[in-house]
Amino acid sequence: MSLIVQKFGGTSVKNAERIKNVARIIAETYLKGNDVLVVLSAQGDTTDDLIEKAAEINQKPSKREMDMLLSTGEQISVSLCAMALDAMGLPCVSLNGWQVGIDSTSVHSDARITNIATERVKRELDARRIVIVTGFQGVSRNGDITTLGRGGSDTSAVALAAAFHADLCQIYTDVDGVYTTDPRMEPNAKKLEEITYDEMLELASQGAQVLHNRSVELAKKFRINLEVVSSLERKPGTKVKEVTKMEKSNIAGVVKDTSISGVALVGLANTPGVAFKVFDLLSKRNINVDVILQSIGREDTKDITFTLHNKDLDEAVQVLEEHKGSLKFDHLKIDGKIGKVSIVGAGLVSNSGVASKMFEALYEAGINIQMINTSEIRVSVLLDEADVTNAVRAIHSKFFD
Amino acid sequence: MSLIVQKFGGTSVKNAERIKNVARIIAETYLKGNDVLVVLSAQGDTTDDLIEKAAEINQKPSKREMDMLLSTGEQISVSLCAMALDAMGLPCVSLNGWQVGIDSTSVHSDARITNIATERVKRELDARRIVIVTGFQGVSRNGDITTLGRGGSDTSAVALAAAFHADLCQIYTDVDGVYTTDPRMEPNAKKLEEITYDEMLELASQGAQVLHNRSVELAKKFRINLEVVSSLERKPGTKVKEVTKMEKSNIAGVVKDTSISGVALVGLANTPGVAFKVFDLLSKRNINVDVILQSIGREDTKDITFTLHNKDLDEAVQVLEEHKGSLKFDHLKIDGKIGKVSIVGAGLVSNSGVASKMFEALYEAGINIQMINTSEIRVSVLLDEADVTNAVRAIHSKFFD
Repeated sequence: MSLIVQKFGGTSVKNAERIKNVARIIAETYLKGNDVLVVLSAQGDTTDDLIEKAAEINQKPSKREMDMLLSTGEQISVSLCAMALDAMGLPCVSLNGWQVGIDSTSVHSDARITNIATERVKRELDARRIVIVTGFQGVSRNGDITTLGRGGSDTSAVALAAAFHADLCQIYTDVDGVYTTDPRMEPNAKKLEEITYDEMLELASQGAQVLHNRSVELAKKFRINLEVVSSLERKPGTKVKEVTKMEKSNIAGVVKDTSISGVALVGLANTPGVAFKVFDLLSKRNINVDVILQSIGREDTKDITFTLHNKDLDEAVQVLEEHKGSLKFDHLKIDGKIGKVSIVGAGLVSNSGVASKMFEALYEAGINIQMINTSEIRVSVLLDEADVTNAVRAIHSKFFD
Repeated sequence: MSLIVQKFGGTSVKNAERIKNVARIIAETYLKGNDVLVVLSAQGDTTDDLIEKAAEINQKPSKREMDMLLSTGEQISVSLCAMALDAMGLPCVSLNGWQVGIDSTSVHSDARITNIATERVKRELDARRIVIVTGFQGVSRNGDITTLGRGGSDTSAVALAAAFHADLCQIYTDVDGVYTTDPRMEPNAKKLEEITYDEMLELASQGAQVLHNRSVELAKKFRINLEVVSSLERKPGTKVKEVTKMEKSNIAGVVKDTSISGVALVGLANTPGVAFKVFDLLSKRNINVDVILQSIGREDTKDITFTLHNKDLDEAVQVLEEHKGSLKFDHLKIDGKIGKVSIVGAGLVSNSGVASKMFEALYEAGINIQMINTSEIRVSVLLDEADVTNAVRAIHSKFFD
């Protein structure tokens, strides 16, 4: 008998019909003799509705109270799902994070799981009940409800899979797996049968929406067999694991990110420590910088260009302008229209031809590269946002057609 | 410095504007230097919406999962109220029943409070925070969320007032106090300045909607100073206490109940133990019987007539028909069109003229009495449902005009 963790996202439980569909998937797994631990997100629009309710009352609600408010969304999902399974005659129980004992840090709205108690869930599983747990939430040492931030429900699922030594952790979503690129953009995109943790991590950090990188990191750490599957179509998904058999292609996928901006500090003094000062200032504000490029400017000055997420742009500009005197730069140049396209593949490190194949594709498509950034298993190029779609399609067809 | 418990019902928190209004009432109390413990119900239609969601999935959802689902309603209310107080710059914290430690029996949907832990709330009050607690819910020994059934939030408020030795427990509602009769029915109804626990209990059990009798019983037991106040108008409400100064009128109010039915077992054998058998059968099914009347029938038989709540009628009839053989009655006579009108007053017991004054009012109005039932501080008459409004008005005008 195996223990299988099944996580369903907000679109998979958005209404009564979808919840019944989810219950059928769970029932099938259970009736094959498996123990099933289910993790659910809030229903479709619930979270947005609750955020709106809060906004009517307080424009800047405290994070502690937002967690109190938003965590009701998952509680509604799990109880409704239990009712659906119950209607099918299957023994089940829904549990909140605090009822399981999912301990977390007390950083409200962005907590990290610190420990998962096993007693209650084990007791329920031993009684052959299907256990349905709220994703996205934990409880702080203080006894307050916390939420886990973006990708939180995926993280809950993987953490539960680790705590209970699950044989498999299935992430059900509205796509049926991980593709070589976004299928809405490139109809020739191919579904991957398998992908390594590292590849998945890079894809997730470079803009693929299918799994959040926190959950993949955790899966890698605890060697959890992850699987991305569709809740709407019954076909094989994509397996995420340590090593894949796949050797046929050098890269796993092409991924884009258009939510980034470029900032250039022009005319910095060419003295040591300048770069340190700039990025120290930003990191103290929790602003994550992605690609950094330093180049020689005119007359013994230098320029530093970096990219960051659009949401952090205003704050970054404000911090830099405030310290214009001490940093001694001439002016800032902002570019909000930057896009990033990356190729990811475990085979990349051992095959120097891959990067040049990517550049060739861009050259043939007449697309100008602004910056380049690489890791062991990834090559990213920064280019004009308007070129992103063409770049993805050109690179994808170079590698996969 | 006093500790004041303030409870607000569903209509008082039904939208953002009403929540802000509630926050102003709380703030005023707090800024006078009082410690404030707030108890909230779910917002207006939330509970109905959740029940509907459940019905789409399961026609007979388990009570445990219904409690899990419905308890989100109060959690939404308390977090929104905290946000409103926070927007006014007041220190506050919202807490669920389980966070306070409101222990209850595990009878889902109708649990009883068994204990209230004081640590967390005390810590928050000591830090001069306004504490906002979910009404209507508790946590069972098993760690499951329970709800307290009808009138549950009033009961939560009174139980918290008892646990923390509050100086006052204010029940804010959409009416501004307890009236001598329903003001929607009789424009001459007068608001009572004070009423005793016993009078309030009788009024509540006889159909007055303003306070649930469980909460009044608890208030009486722990001698809690209760007050019924309007959340919409700022004027004095009605105080519920042990002894009232009021001696001016013999009765506190006239109250009606039209949700009852009459059942008559006709032609029972005139042997001992028959009444016992009938009511033992019903009590084993948790069916509460109100007024009972036994009379001699024809030819050495007897008839037993009783009233009960409409919701229990079908089940009662079914049980009795099932045991027709052993109970040996001839046939059942059902009357679904029965109404009950009662007068309640602590002075009743010492004033025999009160009951006859009531009967006189009915006689003058040409209303026929079917049955009579009395307690120390109450006289009830059963009559045709169509006569109820006229009966209330006639009796009210006899005593209060």
